Amino acid sequence: MSDKNKKPQKLKARLPRGFVDREAADIRAANQMMETIREVYERYGFDPIETPLFEYTDALGKFLPDSDRPNEGVFSLQDDDEQWMSLRYDLTAPMARHVAENFQEIQLPFRTYRAGYVFRNEKPGPGRFRQFMQFDADTVGAPGVQSDAEMCMMMADTLEALGIKRGDYVIRVNNRKVLDGVMEAIGLGGEENAGRRLTVLRAIDKFDKFGTDGVRLLLGEGRKDESGDFTKGAGLKTTHINFIADLFLKTNDGASTRQRQTAEAVRQQMMLPFQGLLGGEKQNETYLNGVDELLALGTLVAAAGYGPDRILIDTSVVRGLEYYTGMVYEAELTFDVTNEKGEKVVFGSVGGGGRYDGLVSRFMGQPVPATGFSIGVSRLMTALKNLGKLGQDEVQGPVLVTVMDGDVESMGRYQKFTQDLRNAGIRAEMYQGNWKKFGNQLKYADRRGAPIAIIQGGDERAQGVVQIKDLIEGKRLSGEITDNAEWREARVAQEVVAEAELVAKVKEILAAQAEDRRRAKGE
Amino acid sequence: MSDKNKKPQKLKARLPRGFVDREAADIRAANQMMETIREVYERYGFDPIETPLFEYTDALGKFLPDSDRPNEGVFSLQDDDEQWMSLRYDLTAPMARHVAENFQEIQLPFRTYRAGYVFRNEKPGPGRFRQFMQFDADTVGAPGVQSDAEMCMMMADTLEALGIKRGDYVIRVNNRKVLDGVMEAIGLGGEENAGRRLTVLRAIDKFDKFGTDGVRLLLGEGRKDESGDFTKGAGLKTTHINFIADLFLKTNDGASTRQRQTAEAVRQQMMLPFQGLLGGEKQNETYLNGVDELLALGTLVAAAGYGPDRILIDTSVVRGLEYYTGMVYEAELTFDVTNEKGEKVVFGSVGGGGRYDGLVSRFMGQPVPATGFSIGVSRLMTALKNLGKLGQDEVQGPVLVTVMDGDVESMGRYQKFTQDLRNAGIRAEMYQGNWKKFGNQLKYADRRGAPIAIIQGGDERAQGVVQIKDLIEGKRLSGEITDNAEWREARVAQEVVAEAELVAKVKEILAAQAEDRRRAKGE
Repeated sequence: MSDKNKKPQKLKARLPRGFVDREAADIRAANQMMETIREVYERYGFDPIETPLFEYTDALGKFLPDSDRPNEGVFSLQDDDEQWMSLRYDLTAPMARHVAENFQEIQLPFRTYRAGYVFRNEKPGPGRFRQFMQFDADTVGAPGVQSDAEMCMMMADTLEALGIKRGDYVIRVNNRKVLDGVMEAIGLGGEENAGRRLTVLRAIDKFDKFGTDGVRLLLGEGRKDESGDFTKGAGLKTTHINFIADLFLKTNDGASTRQRQTAEAVRQQMMLPFQGLLGGEKQNETYLNGVDELLALGTLVAAAGYGPDRILIDTSVVRGLEYYTGMVYEAELTFDVTNEKGEKVVFGSVGGGGRYDGLVSRFMGQPVPATGFSIGVSRLMTALKNLGKLGQDEVQGPVLVTVMDGDVESMGRYQKFTQDLRNAGIRAEMYQGNWKKFGNQLKYADRRGAPIAIIQGGDERAQGVVQIKDLIEGKRLSGEITDNAEWREARVAQEVVAEAELVAKVKEILAAQAEDRRRAKGE
Repeated sequence: MSDKNKKPQKLKARLPRGFVDREAADIRAANQMMETIREVYERYGFDPIETPLFEYTDALGKFLPDSDRPNEGVFSLQDDDEQWMSLRYDLTAPMARHVAENFQEIQLPFRTYRAGYVFRNEKPGPGRFRQFMQFDADTVGAPGVQSDAEMCMMMADTLEALGIKRGDYVIRVNNRKVLDGVMEAIGLGGEENAGRRLTVLRAIDKFDKFGTDGVRLLLGEGRKDESGDFTKGAGLKTTHINFIADLFLKTNDGASTRQRQTAEAVRQQMMLPFQGLLGGEKQNETYLNGVDELLALGTLVAAAGYGPDRILIDTSVVRGLEYYTGMVYEAELTFDVTNEKGEKVVFGSVGGGGRYDGLVSRFMGQPVPATGFSIGVSRLMTALKNLGKLGQDEVQGPVLVTVMDGDVESMGRYQKFTQDLRNAGIRAEMYQGNWKKFGNQLKYADRRGAPIAIIQGGDERAQGVVQIKDLIEGKRLSGEITDNAEWREARVAQEVVAEAELVAKVKEILAAQAEDRRRAKGE
């Protein structure tokens, strides 16, 4: 009885909520995609850097968009010396820390890229994970609009390099100063109103989630959600809410937006209603400055050949992160996909970024301007798979050297066949399971997608020959057979060759199979 | 006064102890190395999988070698639902969890590889970090010696693929059953002695740290370290300590070890002293079994062409991890390097592994045999750099388009030059810092290793031409000049071409520079 109690409980194998394992096809597709992104960034003159997954909590700051209690959104723990450390929640804050820490050695402008996992300690949901990958590029020490323009062009080039057609994406650009100018104009300027400004910003950023009506409630008195929870609003006047809704809430009307594109049209579209809001001849420097920067960016990218079909000034872009100080930009895929409810929707954002002139300066006694963007790797992968642009080149399974006899001498021969194939550059393996059940070996070959099986029993060994089964040819033939169970034995294409010819024959069959695949694709 | 108090303190930019940032050269070298490793593993028929960085603490188990309180060696925190999660400390335990969790879908044998960061919550020291990368390969569901043999051959092939010459490395193999047999023979068998066995194992594993004398103390009464702390020993008798020291403590005498290699020699070397220990005709099944497996492995790898110069049976291999149940193997680089004290020492281990038949079964009602190994990525990189096998192909700096005028129209032209170069596949960037200090632009070009600078001032713009400075040619010429400060202006090789010829001319200069580099290398 007491012995039974001592028996250890069987452990349950399970992952913490919001974390997932990744399989081969997914990993290979991600690597392929990231290699393409890397090539574009390198061509633009960016170099890789990498920071560790931990930072001191104070160095990360409190910039998470989705929570009013940002520290609850990160994974934190206390070090031996009682200091709090957190897992990074994005790649921008750690990069800012890196620049500040190494400021004496770094030559500005500092142009870097990095891919890595970030962590959010949030409630997981469908497609919402607590560990996910971002791929960022940033220029630190770059004060001018030209570096924001470069970021937008690089995002466009990256999407095209990945196979996304022109017309299927757009980089939308806005300037945080436009929003700040409006805040000043409606009496929400100054340090004392920082909290209310943040409430307005987060309300606008909730457009995708709650729609125009929901955001209007959040800008006004507040909003009660389905569970009855009430979120207090920013308390704005209706005229101000109307103005903000007009300027900042997405229309989903890409075509009409894209026509607002000549510099004069943009200026008119942005200045006239603003004058109405201010009343009379008043000006707001911040707002004017934001509009001018947007117009300059439009001119710069147009000169380099990027029209509004690729890079579009669009005042509905807000982005929730508090640290942006100027341009904000967003890469949106404009083609339709069917969502889980069966509705056709625009695919939407796959990344974005902006100017964050204050993020490095937090550590310094001086201003350090910076701009950069971040790609959501798994979301972009989903898009590319939707378009059939990723994972098309399947990795072939290995040639399987089967095991017919388990004595050391026979095993040594199988091992030698396997190494001979590998040494010739052929993907190959010897069966490593319980060899006595030959059916398992064939089942294994099938599940692994093995193109060829090598077989040598006692008779063949005595004659110095091996059997080579073409499993793909066999599969094709099996379409003509009714009894699937017997085809492998009976009809599979097979040849017997001398041991010394093994490698050459395998190469020949693999080449024929590759030719078949090309033909099947109609190449 | 109260305002001053409100002013936020300047944040200090610093990383938590034991964590480091990585620079471009290091990242590129690691990627290059890991790509080579990946190719070998793929050729051997292994596929990638990846697990997240967090696991439930109980799923990881307590297998860390270096601590008697293993939970103190990991980073752990409590999830919202009060369950403890930890950052993985290796890649084996999470893989075992993955297999158990997906056992119904997985086709055994399951052959996978993965690279990723692991974390140890330990006191950091020189070359000892709290986040580091491992690159693992494992076969689960493989009971036979042949899969251990395959692991050893794959390690050997990996090292050779990375450029490490035959003779500069050796894969050393032992079997945990040999140690277990000795434990049984000296009266330390059975569940009730698990603790003492672990003490013996960890004592032997401390050989590199404390030498023969230190280990003998730990096997006997105990050892007092320099600070006066006393570590209690395993309390073995002197005859037993002598026997263990003879069989398991490294001789550092590679040459003589390598001669003990015919199967008969290994058997004699291992059986005779053991008979002496047991006395008379007694046998120990566990020990015999371990010796037989070692001999079988030797035969298998020899059949595939791997002699003792590459894969060596060596009873001094122990490996500290508690979860090994059979073969243990270690990849050692045998060439000399100079350590920080100026002494010549053998480079040593860059990875290892073994058979862990119990690790998956912890979650299952059935035995699941498995074997695998792990490469320490940064240690192997250090070795390859020592050998001059890594980071030889430097990435060229970008062509720098300088900024002479800051009006939007001029900027647009610079931007267009830059995009034209990039569209032709040339690494290029436009200067993004404060353009008004031209000296800074040249300094930047120098620090970035820019091969070419493009310059267009007002005069050139009026004529529709650009200046192209060959900065490498300039550097070469500067060797003949005494005043380094003036050469850039005066003697740098430069040409003036029409705007339309910019790309072609840049290509021509880059090709000439590449040719120079080839010649300098004597190719």
